[in-house]
Amino acid sequence: MSMQKHPEQSQVRAELAAIKRQKIISAASEMFSRYGYANTRLDTVADQLGVTKQFIYSEFDSKAQLLAEICMRAVTSTLTATDGVCESNLPPVEKLAEFTRQFVMAICSHQSDVTVYAHERNNVDAVDGERLDFVRHALDKRVMKILEEGLEKGAFHIKNPRITALAIQGMVSWMYVWYRPEGKLSLEELANDVAIQVLSLVEAK
Amino acid sequence: MSMQKHPEQSQVRAELAAIKRQKIISAASEMFSRYGYANTRLDTVADQLGVTKQFIYSEFDSKAQLLAEICMRAVTSTLTATDGVCESNLPPVEKLAEFTRQFVMAICSHQSDVTVYAHERNNVDAVDGERLDFVRHALDKRVMKILEEGLEKGAFHIKNPRITALAIQGMVSWMYVWYRPEGKLSLEELANDVAIQVLSLVEAK
Repeated sequence: MSMQKHPEQSQVRAELAAIKRQKIISAASEMFSRYGYANTRLDTVADQLGVTKQFIYSEFDSKAQLLAEICMRAVTSTLTATDGVCESNLPPVEKLAEFTRQFVMAICSHQSDVTVYAHERNNVDAVDGERLDFVRHALDKRVMKILEEGLEKGAFHIKNPRITALAIQGMVSWMYVWYRPEGKLSLEELANDVAIQVLSLVEAK
Repeated sequence: MSMQKHPEQSQVRAELAAIKRQKIISAASEMFSRYGYANTRLDTVADQLGVTKQFIYSEFDSKAQLLAEICMRAVTSTLTATDGVCESNLPPVEKLAEFTRQFVMAICSHQSDVTVYAHERNNVDAVDGERLDFVRHALDKRVMKILEEGLEKGAFHIKNPRITALAIQGMVSWMYVWYRPEGKLSLEELANDVAIQVLSLVEAK
């Protein structure tokens, strides 16, 4: 009843809850990526946040659920970042370049989430794991679609689009290993350099 | 004394010990890559081999030492495989192509070792970790050297060799994620296709 009377209050509460969840996920992501999932206790995550373990359990059923949400944030970040460019009418070369830039920025700005996903995927429960695979395959399909469009329009020169798609995903995904936010190039410059690499890879016309 | 009298016997013993070590490393690599290092007990590895845990402890001090050896096998495999081509006098384009083929075959034929190295590097002790980094940097240097030679001789067209080197290593290293020995292409065919990708990447003349 009070929710109907004071909708703005319940909205504030929902927003606070969402912020709380994201803070917990981020702290856990940081620690899982550094020390490994199995080696990290929720007590340590709670200490890191300066809260009680109960605070974490008020939002997450288990450490496993927290792991699944970190991995989901990793895989959805690449989809969300590339939504716009994939729906656009850009010509193939520009589309692939912009897709790559957005993909790079998603991977690098979610570096700890991607690290956890890459290292701990096997520790995710079966049901959550299937949801993760579903989202990841959606990204695979986007890459393939851009490559096939470019081939049809004669904009790319590639022998085996499947291998090229995997090569692009390898180049970009592997950045979670070597990207350093404090590096010489800004993230935008780096994303642009990687996009140039990808255009070479497909021998863009 | 008996070793000097029967050198052939001690050689047989040494060979058997080496085989024993490799069998233990391989079984552990398989299980660590599938279930994670922290989740795998040495008892399970021993069961898998049909031996006692004591058998494993006769060769390795600890689970941590076993992890370090698996990771070392992963990183040295890429160096060993590319020794020949790096010492050869092949022209840059052929050298890069052959380097890539050998690199791909090393990664794919040591898939579980590479998986363990990629996922569990942070769990390796500091001293062993430094040795691993040393070997891995040797591979980085080889890639850079080939790219710089090709640039000098005008055989490649690349804007930023450092990024290109990381792109090549990403493309190939990431194969530990998607390579399937039962796939349509033979490992040699796949290695060749990836080499073609790399030549596109550097815009080989």
